[in-house]
Amino acid sequence: MEIDLNSDLGEGFGPWAMGDDAQMLSIVTSANIACGGHASDPETMYRTLQLAKENGVNVGAHPGFRDREGFGRRVIPMSPAEAGRMCAAQIGALMGMAAQVGVPVTYVKPHGALGNLAARDRDVADAIVAAVRAIDPTLAMLAISGTQSEQAARAADVPVFSEIFADRGYLSTGHLVPRGQKGAMIHDTDEAAERLMSFLETGLMPVIDGDPIKLEAQSICVHGDSPGAVEMARGIRQRLTERGVRISRFSTV
Amino acid sequence: MEIDLNSDLGEGFGPWAMGDDAQMLSIVTSANIACGGHASDPETMYRTLQLAKENGVNVGAHPGFRDREGFGRRVIPMSPAEAGRMCAAQIGALMGMAAQVGVPVTYVKPHGALGNLAARDRDVADAIVAAVRAIDPTLAMLAISGTQSEQAARAADVPVFSEIFADRGYLSTGHLVPRGQKGAMIHDTDEAAERLMSFLETGLMPVIDGDPIKLEAQSICVHGDSPGAVEMARGIRQRLTERGVRISRFSTV
Amino acid sequence: MEIDLNSDLGEGFGPWAMGDDAQMLSIVTSANIACGGHASDPETMYRTLQLAKENGVNVGAHPGFRDREGFGRRVIPMSPAEAGRMCAAQIGALMGMAAQVGVPVTYVKPHGALGNLAARDRDVADAIVAAVRAIDPTLAMLAISGTQSEQAARAADVPVFSEIFADRGYLSTGHLVPRGQKGAMIHDTDEAAERLMSFLETGLMPVIDGDPIKLEAQSICVHGDSPGAVEMARGIRQRLTERGVRISRFSTV
Amino acid sequence: MEIDLNSDLGEGFGPWAMGDDAQMLSIVTSANIACGGHASDPETMYRTLQLAKENGVNVGAHPGFRDREGFGRRVIPMSPAEAGRMCAAQIGALMGMAAQVGVPVTYVKPHGALGNLAARDRDVADAIVAAVRAIDPTLAMLAISGTQSEQAARAADVPVFSEIFADRGYLSTGHLVPRGQKGAMIHDTDEAAERLMSFLETGLMPVIDGDPIKLEAQSICVHGDSPGAVEMARGIRQRLTERGVRISRFSTV
Repeated sequence: MEIDLNSDLGEGFGPWAMGDDAQMLSIVTSANIACGGHASDPETMYRTLQLAKENGVNVGAHPGFRDREGFGRRVIPMSPAEAGRMCAAQIGALMGMAAQVGVPVTYVKPHGALGNLAARDRDVADAIVAAVRAIDPTLAMLAISGTQSEQAARAADVPVFSEIFADRGYLSTGHLVPRGQKGAMIHDTDEAAERLMSFLETGLMPVIDGDPIKLEAQSICVHGDSPGAVEMARGIRQRLTERGVRISRFSTV
Repeated sequence: MEIDLNSDLGEGFGPWAMGDDAQMLSIVTSANIACGGHASDPETMYRTLQLAKENGVNVGAHPGFRDREGFGRRVIPMSPAEAGRMCAAQIGALMGMAAQVGVPVTYVKPHGALGNLAARDRDVADAIVAAVRAIDPTLAMLAISGTQSEQAARAADVPVFSEIFADRGYLSTGHLVPRGQKGAMIHDTDEAAERLMSFLETGLMPVIDGDPIKLEAQSICVHGDSPGAVEMARGIRQRLTERGVRISRFSTV
Repeated sequence: MEIDLNSDLGEGFGPWAMGDDAQMLSIVTSANIACGGHASDPETMYRTLQLAKENGVNVGAHPGFRDREGFGRRVIPMSPAEAGRMCAAQIGALMGMAAQVGVPVTYVKPHGALGNLAARDRDVADAIVAAVRAIDPTLAMLAISGTQSEQAARAADVPVFSEIFADRGYLSTGHLVPRGQKGAMIHDTDEAAERLMSFLETGLMPVIDGDPIKLEAQSICVHGDSPGAVEMARGIRQRLTERGVRISRFSTV
Repeated sequence: MEIDLNSDLGEGFGPWAMGDDAQMLSIVTSANIACGGHASDPETMYRTLQLAKENGVNVGAHPGFRDREGFGRRVIPMSPAEAGRMCAAQIGALMGMAAQVGVPVTYVKPHGALGNLAARDRDVADAIVAAVRAIDPTLAMLAISGTQSEQAARAADVPVFSEIFADRGYLSTGHLVPRGQKGAMIHDTDEAAERLMSFLETGLMPVIDGDPIKLEAQSICVHGDSPGAVEMARGIRQRLTERGVRISRFSTV
């Protein structure tokens, strides 16, 4: 059994920090690095890429709506084609910086409201996938398991890896339990690890409203910016490792 | 005799236009395209790159200080290394967008205050050249003739092309006549064309305070955003062509 | 018969211009001046306020979504309370600048997508009106005739003036003919002036799908940023004046 | 003996926090609140103003260079008049928001590089003071003791209060020991408090290179964003209070 651990990182801006990138980069195997859209700037990108390289972490671009005040969590109205181009500029910016550090950008994961939109809107997903493909056909997508993003990538022959969430509850429809509802968040590390082990052993994800469902995933998303994020991520990694799971970047899965 | 004509283009932002890109792109052979630093945004980059492609114009990245209100004409204090990284992110952004259009980015010309700083400060020039080289060793620099930028590129084995200005007077030191002084600007198209012909035929540039000086140049910079810019650029192109000069992109000079 | 003419002005940003503010300020009697949200910056505000003062034009604050790339024409998701506070900061910014020029800010008109949202969403309208009232209870609202903004201002005892559009067609519901439909735009100055005269003489506005409807208005909105905007505005002013209409700022209507 | 304690607060931006505003606002008597220039946005201003009101803290506007990435610590080149207008828009923005909260803005303290520039450049100081005076002649300046800002305010009859730094060493010239030199920073709370007591009792400030010098001050600036900032500020307040100093807002000193 082996799996990747990914997290959204490099989400500071200018003088402001977000989460503990140095700690998280010692835990995860893939880093979704902000590209100057919802967060980050050249210096923040550079520092994060350097830390990722030092830790041997797989680097992905994490483009989002250009809306720093909203941290990319608000849908900024635009056409699918505009969304694709917005991603192209951000991915390119991170690649330009990655060339300075000497580390390759191997995948793309859209952030926040853009990621959620691409998960349910095939036109947006198609546009983002086409933008990624035009930049480099070997660039992969990291998509939420079971979404339009995943299908758009498959349809376009763009390599795609799928993720599940370490700390979010699932419904039998395959969707996440909406935030604010009972079961939406898993706060206990043991409980989160237990559920992930169950998924890794059976391919079936426990849900809060019925029998476990079949999901595919090559990566587990752990959060980097909530209180206790580092402890949760480290605890999950440790428990999975103890149970014989090999934690390794998804490109080699 | 042959020479390239270059101009700073794609310098609109969101709803705001700057100059007449469509007209200028039918005149010049190389376009220095803003990258979202001092001007531009994803949609503006995309439209400008498309127009450049349709006109068969050579595409360069035109990075500048991230200071839209100052249009990149103010020096924003930062270290040379930071200046290099700022350029890397912007060049990458334009390359990401150029991949959507299917047009190569072949060179880099720093904008405004950044270009002037790199012209006189070797550390800044070295940092920008190193950033360009790390992205792609075949990317060229377009530098002001006789400056630190030009020398930094030569020293680093980065291909470099040099430019002279169509509408600016020169001093015998090789520097431009400072704006505001008599002879700083050439407003008459015939006078500008005559002087350029003289340079093209002899390799010597007339100056306002002595004998003509030796300059090297593979490109002539024409301005795109002043009143009468299109007429000036078109007039110069026409007069040079009539005198037997072939106007062609510098990569083939 | 007397009426005010208003226009959205001061919508440049940094080096970029939008429309011809100097010309428009010699025509209109009220200027809705951008406040640094969807457009403008301190220097642009200052220059526009000075021109307004020199022309004796009534000054209003024109707050919009903080989205320069979208020019305030996209709805940025936020709560009504956040929309109100966003306006408060922008109105305050313009007032701080108006104090430098020595000209009073007498009213507020929300811009673009924010104005349209406030026109149909009473919660947003209430929040903006409350923000205006908290700043200065004598500040008026300039609202689209027949909208929630108008009603919210009335309900809160905030002085309110209503506007009709010089160049937009109306439906019998009182709404504008949607852009893109036949009759949405009036491009001919004579036709626009004729229709306005009809409204001024009868209080009834011609519509494209039935009998004229009753509307209240103390101001006519003329556009400042479309091609031919200055000619249209000047033509309307001239024709109305010739027909005996006094053009004067709405505060004295 | 009585003195004010002031701190730079409300310096978060969008999703990003800076320091612990809630804690600091329970310690200081005056809050220099960022206005959307070097930091902050409408929601951050609102929350900070509410906290200030709840704690009965005196509110000042803290305008800075519009340079979030540089946090207002870089000089952005502009004329003195432009600097003054930039402040006017920011002060106005905070006043517009303060009206929503129902708390008065009573003073202005320029931030970072702008504050340092105004301290040594009389033209910049004059322009800022004139901008403040035009907004409200009862608005005070909070200036670094012994600087051009202080003198500019006096010359313009703008109320002015002066501050000393709790944790910075002084030279016999009255200037601060430059950062990086021995004695520049005081890290020990007891040492800082002892020195402040000495100043409060004698009016003479100890310096690192000679006899204590005469300084005037109605306020002590404590930092809010460094590690240990809250502990340092609380410790100083406690020690001064124990020694009989009344900590109260400077408007009543």
